[in-house]
Amino acid sequence: MTRKLRMGMIGGGTGSFIGDVHRRAAAIDGMIELVCGAFSSNEEKSKTSGKALYLPEDRCYGSFEEMILKEKELPEGVRMDFVSIVTPNHMHFPPAKLALENGFNVVCDKPMTLTLDEAIALETIIEKSGKLFALTHNYTGHPMVKQARAMVAKGDLGKIRKIQVQYLQGWLSTAVEQTGQKQASWRVDPSKSGIGGALGDIGTHAENLAEYITGLKIEELAADLGKFGEGRVLDDDGNLLLRMENGAKGTMSISQIALGEENNLAIKVYGEKGSLEWHQENPNQLITHWLEEPVKIFTPNGNNLYEEALNVSRIPAGHPEGYLEAFATIYKNFATHLMAVLNGETIDKPDYPTVKDGIRGMQFIYAAVESDKKNAAWTKIE
Amino acid sequence: MTRKLRMGMIGGGTGSFIGDVHRRAAAIDGMIELVCGAFSSNEEKSKTSGKALYLPEDRCYGSFEEMILKEKELPEGVRMDFVSIVTPNHMHFPPAKLALENGFNVVCDKPMTLTLDEAIALETIIEKSGKLFALTHNYTGHPMVKQARAMVAKGDLGKIRKIQVQYLQGWLSTAVEQTGQKQASWRVDPSKSGIGGALGDIGTHAENLAEYITGLKIEELAADLGKFGEGRVLDDDGNLLLRMENGAKGTMSISQIALGEENNLAIKVYGEKGSLEWHQENPNQLITHWLEEPVKIFTPNGNNLYEEALNVSRIPAGHPEGYLEAFATIYKNFATHLMAVLNGETIDKPDYPTVKDGIRGMQFIYAAVESDKKNAAWTKIE
Amino acid sequence: MTRKLRMGMIGGGTGSFIGDVHRRAAAIDGMIELVCGAFSSNEEKSKTSGKALYLPEDRCYGSFEEMILKEKELPEGVRMDFVSIVTPNHMHFPPAKLALENGFNVVCDKPMTLTLDEAIALETIIEKSGKLFALTHNYTGHPMVKQARAMVAKGDLGKIRKIQVQYLQGWLSTAVEQTGQKQASWRVDPSKSGIGGALGDIGTHAENLAEYITGLKIEELAADLGKFGEGRVLDDDGNLLLRMENGAKGTMSISQIALGEENNLAIKVYGEKGSLEWHQENPNQLITHWLEEPVKIFTPNGNNLYEEALNVSRIPAGHPEGYLEAFATIYKNFATHLMAVLNGETIDKPDYPTVKDGIRGMQFIYAAVESDKKNAAWTKIE
Amino acid sequence: MTRKLRMGMIGGGTGSFIGDVHRRAAAIDGMIELVCGAFSSNEEKSKTSGKALYLPEDRCYGSFEEMILKEKELPEGVRMDFVSIVTPNHMHFPPAKLALENGFNVVCDKPMTLTLDEAIALETIIEKSGKLFALTHNYTGHPMVKQARAMVAKGDLGKIRKIQVQYLQGWLSTAVEQTGQKQASWRVDPSKSGIGGALGDIGTHAENLAEYITGLKIEELAADLGKFGEGRVLDDDGNLLLRMENGAKGTMSISQIALGEENNLAIKVYGEKGSLEWHQENPNQLITHWLEEPVKIFTPNGNNLYEEALNVSRIPAGHPEGYLEAFATIYKNFATHLMAVLNGETIDKPDYPTVKDGIRGMQFIYAAVESDKKNAAWTKIE
Repeated sequence: MTRKLRMGMIGGGTGSFIGDVHRRAAAIDGMIELVCGAFSSNEEKSKTSGKALYLPEDRCYGSFEEMILKEKELPEGVRMDFVSIVTPNHMHFPPAKLALENGFNVVCDKPMTLTLDEAIALETIIEKSGKLFALTHNYTGHPMVKQARAMVAKGDLGKIRKIQVQYLQGWLSTAVEQTGQKQASWRVDPSKSGIGGALGDIGTHAENLAEYITGLKIEELAADLGKFGEGRVLDDDGNLLLRMENGAKGTMSISQIALGEENNLAIKVYGEKGSLEWHQENPNQLITHWLEEPVKIFTPNGNNLYEEALNVSRIPAGHPEGYLEAFATIYKNFATHLMAVLNGETIDKPDYPTVKDGIRGMQFIYAAVESDKKNAAWTKIE
Repeated sequence: MTRKLRMGMIGGGTGSFIGDVHRRAAAIDGMIELVCGAFSSNEEKSKTSGKALYLPEDRCYGSFEEMILKEKELPEGVRMDFVSIVTPNHMHFPPAKLALENGFNVVCDKPMTLTLDEAIALETIIEKSGKLFALTHNYTGHPMVKQARAMVAKGDLGKIRKIQVQYLQGWLSTAVEQTGQKQASWRVDPSKSGIGGALGDIGTHAENLAEYITGLKIEELAADLGKFGEGRVLDDDGNLLLRMENGAKGTMSISQIALGEENNLAIKVYGEKGSLEWHQENPNQLITHWLEEPVKIFTPNGNNLYEEALNVSRIPAGHPEGYLEAFATIYKNFATHLMAVLNGETIDKPDYPTVKDGIRGMQFIYAAVESDKKNAAWTKIE
Repeated sequence: MTRKLRMGMIGGGTGSFIGDVHRRAAAIDGMIELVCGAFSSNEEKSKTSGKALYLPEDRCYGSFEEMILKEKELPEGVRMDFVSIVTPNHMHFPPAKLALENGFNVVCDKPMTLTLDEAIALETIIEKSGKLFALTHNYTGHPMVKQARAMVAKGDLGKIRKIQVQYLQGWLSTAVEQTGQKQASWRVDPSKSGIGGALGDIGTHAENLAEYITGLKIEELAADLGKFGEGRVLDDDGNLLLRMENGAKGTMSISQIALGEENNLAIKVYGEKGSLEWHQENPNQLITHWLEEPVKIFTPNGNNLYEEALNVSRIPAGHPEGYLEAFATIYKNFATHLMAVLNGETIDKPDYPTVKDGIRGMQFIYAAVESDKKNAAWTKIE
Repeated sequence: MTRKLRMGMIGGGTGSFIGDVHRRAAAIDGMIELVCGAFSSNEEKSKTSGKALYLPEDRCYGSFEEMILKEKELPEGVRMDFVSIVTPNHMHFPPAKLALENGFNVVCDKPMTLTLDEAIALETIIEKSGKLFALTHNYTGHPMVKQARAMVAKGDLGKIRKIQVQYLQGWLSTAVEQTGQKQASWRVDPSKSGIGGALGDIGTHAENLAEYITGLKIEELAADLGKFGEGRVLDDDGNLLLRMENGAKGTMSISQIALGEENNLAIKVYGEKGSLEWHQENPNQLITHWLEEPVKIFTPNGNNLYEEALNVSRIPAGHPEGYLEAFATIYKNFATHLMAVLNGETIDKPDYPTVKDGIRGMQFIYAAVESDKKNAAWTKIE
């Protein structure tokens, strides 16, 4: 490939948190350039946002439909290669569908869709399109998460018996959505968020991380959801029991009303021979325990790592990589795959989350909501 | 009081873990002296154990019955003031009953009894006896646990919404009970341990700590217990959902097969105005979060503590107190109460766990086992 | 400004650690694009490196002289705006001089030059050129370092009394330079590194960080340097006493043979009213102590921060930023300044390290080497 | 031995910090009973203190002379076996001398004496007396300190190259001695403290710990002392360079004006094959680094410990022991030795600090004060 990939963005106008994240993540590895965007459904806002990003005015569109259809008409050497969808949940499926059907590859934020039906439909659309689709479960991009997954996969921990996963935030402790806080407003609104609140926003990350590291599916769950914030109709808290496909058991705790928690995603996995522990807020440590050895702490680019972890570190040991770099790894692996495809090559086991992860996430939300309705009855994820 | 209190010990012969703990804990504050013991039901072993403790041979008895009855006959200035019961669970009730009925005060290890029926019976016996009874839920003796409880009680955290409590150990990860490990053998044996395995051994500590700090009762729970160790008939792992009497929700995770965990009792409590976090393995920190202030970490004898915490620190800030000191605080508070009684005085709110905590612990075990039998159905603690 | 700034890079060919770092740092905030480079003094290598970065072949030069002179001839709308110098120390001054004298702004890695004389000469060249010059003391870009500096400046800590600063690495514990390790080879070679080994490579960061946070100059130092690696002629370890201009005292410890240390830059500052502590390896915490309050921990975008810290955070609290992001802040602040200049505007207090920091760093190296020669005699930094 | 050892205490009356510490430490292992005391030079105060400790009035003396001479007259089966001296520094030598000369063994707090001359004299007195003498450098009693020492001794770390040791407190940040704070008053008074302030109080601990763990003597030092507290004549802060007998280099930082520090004694030791790190405030971890292995953390009674560490743990892994337990280990090892002697036995390598450690501590103080007077000139410890 003798050029960078060209990205068009949907959503992510000025002031957006996640739009900025995607742009920075796409930029870090120097493989992608932003060439166009439909940053807002308000054309003027979209153009203003694009200008602040140094984009030419004629590549800043007033709607995703306009962008997809107009870009399609541009010469091959100019038009975007893929779209990045960073809108609220209800606006994931429509642009993804349109982009795929018009020959564009897609990167999409999570949860993948508003409904489970959309998620299932999307899988068919992707297959039919023959295009690539990546879902930004960004936390799987951390070197120590890769190391954790590799250690379990290689059997270092033995059979897994117990899992603890949590994703705790406190930013919805008060009713900030009533103060006009934009990030909060759509997240507590079922028409934009779907049937899950915290479940969709952070629970899917917890579910995805647990399954990614252990290589095990959650078979069934029992969910006790809370709606603590005044006037909330969606869950802002949840306590779950988990049963994994191999007989392991566990808990999941998620919350956006866990006052004082910032972004406390963490997981512990206990096996018959070893155990491990990882914390997103200090992501450059993987703490491990062993039957007959002292605690060992692995660090990115440190000693004794598997290739899977070494592959995704950018800088020497002790130079902390963070949230953006892990996010960038999703983009990098997607870009690597897409470049290969554009070069007519194939790639062995592309390592980024796909539509299957997206469907799984939606199934998780649906199972949890159903379980909660039945007073935390055991419910299968399917 | 012009003399130390005189303690007789039941159980805790040479090689016992918890007997040594009780002896050291009783000694730290200089208010108690060990004067006699029935350290083993084997008279010779009992005498050997007593000799190693520098006790006179005639105060080392071959059974608790012998000890209680013979000590009763000794002159008032010589005979023990109270017994400390440090046997396996099935041998808590018989000596406690006999001691109380013969006029001796009692300190007893937890869980209080083998069965819930015994626990309820014991309450009546205590009341009838007019004697003091302390249960060694030792973790409530830590200065930072006292501070935590005081902060919740004074409303600093606002209404409590969410609780996470865990007690994780890994020492039963392999079937050590099959290797003759004495501590393990009785704990996995229902005839000695009762209907709960990890539930009784450590779950009751988790339950007690959560209720002690929050001042809230667990109203109902849903328990998914595991028996991972080969051939185990009692739980060695448990994942629980909790609902508190005030509407708060939470999780409890307990395990003795969480490989690599040493003695990881920890709790997080989230309120509407603040939250707190405490870890037994590093007990000299209380981490707190606030709506509009940075994280604050309290330390024993450090700045801004409540009297409840200051009262139980023995040494200046930065000089870590540990497991034995917290345990000693139970003994100290019990001894202070008993000395007052012996002096014909009363004491305002003696601060140590009592038979009520013991009954609560047994109810917790029974509720959890029942819930587990019903596939983790919600079950009230009562 | 309606376009990104155009950067040309000197050094940083394929396999370079710091070249990649500068490129990523420059890319993160979307204000800069790499347009050309003299990535190696070997033209073919330079072109290969440039190709991997998707640069056109005719903008990949075989020497910095060629790049500077040819870019100068390009039309204004095409040619680079500034050069980024990421070569070993001995190749900082020549390209910086040539670039400045030909009208290009400069970003340069540290230590600024090979010799103190060069550093002083550079200041004059910069002044004469009227161009901007930034030195990448990247650690000052962390939000919590900004917060620390602001807290001291506003007097929160009172008069500073004591400082501990350290920068510890272990990667030169063995004689890796004898194995052909490129990063090591030039660092232990005085003709490329200058008179300081660890002093220049990491000591200058420690010196800069201490002076940046405290706002105090190190007045004099006593240095005991070590050359532990077999055959080393430059220091790979140093222990220093510090006396600050206000009477504060302190220690500095630097090492590249502190086995097992990864990149342990850390500082503690003690004042009459408060104290603070920051660790590069977990950079998203600022630990503070107070006379009459508990320990407080500040986090990026957390509660109670000064604007200086808030200004440089990119993502919400709990989403860790790391080494690259702090590095990027130097680029961002430099780019913001340069854009203003290009727009004919001025900017109030641009916040990035300049030639004055560079001179100070060289003076520090020279003072430490001189002190060490005199058996750690007190030596002024001047 | 069929009885506990009998201890008499000199100093340590009601309200004393260190008297209580010694009493608790002596009690924890059940080998020692307090039988008498000269708790104050005021007879009434001494008797009041003794009464609160449940001692008979006739064993509470008005002076150490009285106690020593009267106890000597008591029958062998009644009189004390040894004295424990817990007075301010100036009152260590006189009672130690008198006790030894009258046939009593001695445990003494540190620094050992007021002057170096006294220290040297004491060595002769001890030799002549044939009695045992222990100095309470309590921090060497921690299991993880024992493990650290064993690891260095067995060569696990290879040749030691670098040491960082610090002992930081903040409690003298303000002039608390002017408020009548008793602990502070004598410590800042040269007639009671000697020529060292922080040097004697905590510096000797740092020196002792560094030499104990590394098995290396500090050959020479360069000390820059501070007297920051208003009106102080003794050092309350110090920064030192160290050179060890084997060529290793290092720093020592001590302070009692390091605001917010509680009792931050910590050490790092770097060798050619490994390194280690220990922190008193969280003493149940020994962090180690290795050339080709991940970080390993050892814990008391955890995996892979040397016998030296296992020997001094009292409770299972994860049950934190603290300051008092480490202190108790000094008493326990002293008592074990004394019991052996009383039984006419010998003991192989008794493991507790002796008069040699005491002399070394005084030499350290003297060298540091001399170096400081000469503007931090290198000064040998001798």
